[in-house]
Amino acid sequence: MKLSELADFLGGKLDGDPELEVSGIAKIEDAGSGQITFISNPKYEKFLSTTEAEALICSPDIQVPSNGPKHIIRVSDPYSAFLFTLERFNPPMAWASSGIHPTAIIDSTARLGSNVTIGPGVVIYKEAKIGNNCRIHANSVIGPAVSMGEDCLLYPNVTVYHQVQIHNRVIIHSGAVIGSDGFGFVPGKDGSYRKIPQMGFVILEDDVEIGSNTSIDRATLGATVVKHGSKLDNLIQIAHNVNVGENTVMAAQVGIAGSVKVGANCQVGGQVGIAGHLEVANNINIGAQSGVSKSLTLSGTTYFGTPAKPIKEAFRMEGAMRQLPSLFRQIKELEDKVAALEAKSGEGKHQ
Amino acid sequence: MKLSELADFLGGKLDGDPELEVSGIAKIEDAGSGQITFISNPKYEKFLSTTEAEALICSPDIQVPSNGPKHIIRVSDPYSAFLFTLERFNPPMAWASSGIHPTAIIDSTARLGSNVTIGPGVVIYKEAKIGNNCRIHANSVIGPAVSMGEDCLLYPNVTVYHQVQIHNRVIIHSGAVIGSDGFGFVPGKDGSYRKIPQMGFVILEDDVEIGSNTSIDRATLGATVVKHGSKLDNLIQIAHNVNVGENTVMAAQVGIAGSVKVGANCQVGGQVGIAGHLEVANNINIGAQSGVSKSLTLSGTTYFGTPAKPIKEAFRMEGAMRQLPSLFRQIKELEDKVAALEAKSGEGKHQ
Amino acid sequence: MKLSELADFLGGKLDGDPELEVSGIAKIEDAGSGQITFISNPKYEKFLSTTEAEALICSPDIQVPSNGPKHIIRVSDPYSAFLFTLERFNPPMAWASSGIHPTAIIDSTARLGSNVTIGPGVVIYKEAKIGNNCRIHANSVIGPAVSMGEDCLLYPNVTVYHQVQIHNRVIIHSGAVIGSDGFGFVPGKDGSYRKIPQMGFVILEDDVEIGSNTSIDRATLGATVVKHGSKLDNLIQIAHNVNVGENTVMAAQVGIAGSVKVGANCQVGGQVGIAGHLEVANNINIGAQSGVSKSLTLSGTTYFGTPAKPIKEAFRMEGAMRQLPSLFRQIKELEDKVAALEAKSGEGKHQ
Repeated sequence: MKLSELADFLGGKLDGDPELEVSGIAKIEDAGSGQITFISNPKYEKFLSTTEAEALICSPDIQVPSNGPKHIIRVSDPYSAFLFTLERFNPPMAWASSGIHPTAIIDSTARLGSNVTIGPGVVIYKEAKIGNNCRIHANSVIGPAVSMGEDCLLYPNVTVYHQVQIHNRVIIHSGAVIGSDGFGFVPGKDGSYRKIPQMGFVILEDDVEIGSNTSIDRATLGATVVKHGSKLDNLIQIAHNVNVGENTVMAAQVGIAGSVKVGANCQVGGQVGIAGHLEVANNINIGAQSGVSKSLTLSGTTYFGTPAKPIKEAFRMEGAMRQLPSLFRQIKELEDKVAALEAKSGEGKHQ
Repeated sequence: MKLSELADFLGGKLDGDPELEVSGIAKIEDAGSGQITFISNPKYEKFLSTTEAEALICSPDIQVPSNGPKHIIRVSDPYSAFLFTLERFNPPMAWASSGIHPTAIIDSTARLGSNVTIGPGVVIYKEAKIGNNCRIHANSVIGPAVSMGEDCLLYPNVTVYHQVQIHNRVIIHSGAVIGSDGFGFVPGKDGSYRKIPQMGFVILEDDVEIGSNTSIDRATLGATVVKHGSKLDNLIQIAHNVNVGENTVMAAQVGIAGSVKVGANCQVGGQVGIAGHLEVANNINIGAQSGVSKSLTLSGTTYFGTPAKPIKEAFRMEGAMRQLPSLFRQIKELEDKVAALEAKSGEGKHQ
Repeated sequence: MKLSELADFLGGKLDGDPELEVSGIAKIEDAGSGQITFISNPKYEKFLSTTEAEALICSPDIQVPSNGPKHIIRVSDPYSAFLFTLERFNPPMAWASSGIHPTAIIDSTARLGSNVTIGPGVVIYKEAKIGNNCRIHANSVIGPAVSMGEDCLLYPNVTVYHQVQIHNRVIIHSGAVIGSDGFGFVPGKDGSYRKIPQMGFVILEDDVEIGSNTSIDRATLGATVVKHGSKLDNLIQIAHNVNVGENTVMAAQVGIAGSVKVGANCQVGGQVGIAGHLEVANNINIGAQSGVSKSLTLSGTTYFGTPAKPIKEAFRMEGAMRQLPSLFRQIKELEDKVAALEAKSGEGKHQ
């Protein structure tokens, strides 16, 4: 691979020969000639003079000694650049080559794009459409009238319910369920519940990734939406009619109740819960395990706690709570002093 | 559909021609003749004079103008009635027509009722019994000696372990696991654990609904029970020997530890946890994310917080916490005043 | 079964005829001759004189009357011993006899040990190795280059991703996902995220048990590890590069963020969350729903609350919070007294 190509791939700035060929990436103490190496931890800088690597990935501020590597790609995050490069030279193990496994069960009315990989035991129901280059691994189930764009990747045992719309380059991990019924019931006079029909669907836009065992419910009417570029970790609950803005990330076990609107570019910590019908503005961070019981309106703010408050306020309250035992002592002392003053004052009065 | 039939279906009171045929339901500004419409939001009442709909679903208190629809079904919850009617006229997409897909793998000792739908790749183990009209979708697995009543609906990729008993009209969403082993181990002297056999089973009574990726563990001995009419949302944990009373609803990600007894007609908010061996009385609401560490005995009460308390108490405590910073200021002021009084009192003494 | 064999099986001390044959176990009021019975609840001791059982399992301190059972196995936990014995005489229903179901789809490069049970619809990808006596039930999927030791048991609909290493006697319940991608993304300048390759794998060591619908992510590089003898309940999230020490148990819905190191012999309560990169020392208990935001260093300690603290401290804080409303009253009284003192003092001054 040419160094210029690698620099482009990493979004880095190349200082060296763009035509230089690199054959792999290795740790600085292990790299041989022909390989590129990287510095992300300052304690490895001592190897810069002795490494056999001709090329280096490092941050913009590193001073490379004159006897160090001559060809340098400067990036803002060298460790990630190392990982991207490592994967580029060592592609992950393919589950299967493209093609339709003979044991896949595909309805005759389903339409498949070109170059798809359909694994063993996959079931594709009627009227489903699968775009070019999609890979659907073993025993996943695609419901009726699902539409899927191009270059999607579904790991084994994924379930996609009827009429769900999946756009392009979407990744869905095993055990995820997209489009199960929203949770809605009308109580009767006898205390029993009547199921409210869940007639809507789900839209997962471009470049969304859904973690393993995450559940996304279909809307009552209309769509539950996860907008482009959003990434959801494992075991997350997205209820009916939720709308997740673009490029929002949610850590594992988050629960979003019905009809919540989460803004764009938010970061939601693990195990957070958001109550129904609330709105979260753009660019909001919510700390892990927080319980959101009111809409969060201050874009650019980090919220924390139950109920979730701006993090400074949450920390102030937590600090105050830690001082409570000493506060009790302070008050006891005050009471003693006041009692003494009262006694003395009473004496004065009686004199 | 005759208006009288629709009124019956909705449990509403008909004021109009019972023989009138309606062909569909639409929003009030869109509805054409032959269609029924509805009012659930007062801001749409202005269309009552101009709608082309001949028939209307509305609440008991709406005044319909003389030039409005002539045939009226009055119900307590017009929006739900709209949804019920919409689904009635637009039935959800069927996954498959009835019959046994040739790729289903059904043990020769299993017994299937009439008119069942068994999807592609479904596996039914030995001695399982499936009642009439059950629908089991693709790649679901029914373990040995499972019994299932009539009219049940299992979405794809459901797992039901051996000997689980499912009654009638039960709905189970994808990824749900019914009957996995309860979590029980005996510690040995060397710190290792020996698995306690989990020899019981699970009973899901009539009209229970289980959300996607919910886990219900089998009992150690006897049965873990979810009683009739209860509805469990997604990603819920029900541990071994739990008993959930009838018509109780639980929102997503609730966790119920072993041997807990939850009463009838309870509502449990999302992400609530209930510690082992506790009892929750009938008709109790538990607010989202609460942690229940003692039995909840006050039927008709809403509990909240960790540890869960009656909600008034929880709110009082939360209010007190919010006042803590100002409390610290109050105490500082008091201390200053007392110091001043002490100084003055001391002066007096020394005079 | 000979009594000596049963005593060995239970790790108990036999006081009686080692050659006596027992044919089953039953409750003390039901047991017949030839059966063994047990006492774990003192209220059943009254049956000791009348039971027909010749043999008894009980704790070391029970006094058996002279007309009671003559052959006694003494154990520390008689109820568990009852369950172990009950299962020994009544083995759980087998899902299937050993062999490879004709509908299983096994890549020609996969290697299977002897006496394996491979269920209907199971998919085993290329280069996977399955050890002797493993049982893999219906529709589970074993990814490429997975290695599995001997005597493992996978229930239906389990997913194991590529290159995961499973050692011996591991049990995995339905819906569990082992080896899904860790959650790592690099933000770009436009707010979009680039996926960080997750090139590592997962190791589940000997005697690990994984509950239903639990997710264990593969490492970014290297391995996410669950060490020997650890038991994970249902719906747990184990993020990339986590290391769980040996003989550690976690209750349902726990979430462990990336690169956390949990020690050996820990007990983690339900719904606990542990933030990324922290360490938990050996022999630590963490109470249910706690939020761990700093490393827990005090081995042998029980921690509780959010943020998690030693439980005494957590209870003291909780107690202080409960006293807050009365504290507000105390302060109001103090303020009144001080105001009275100030008024009197002022009067004095003006005289």
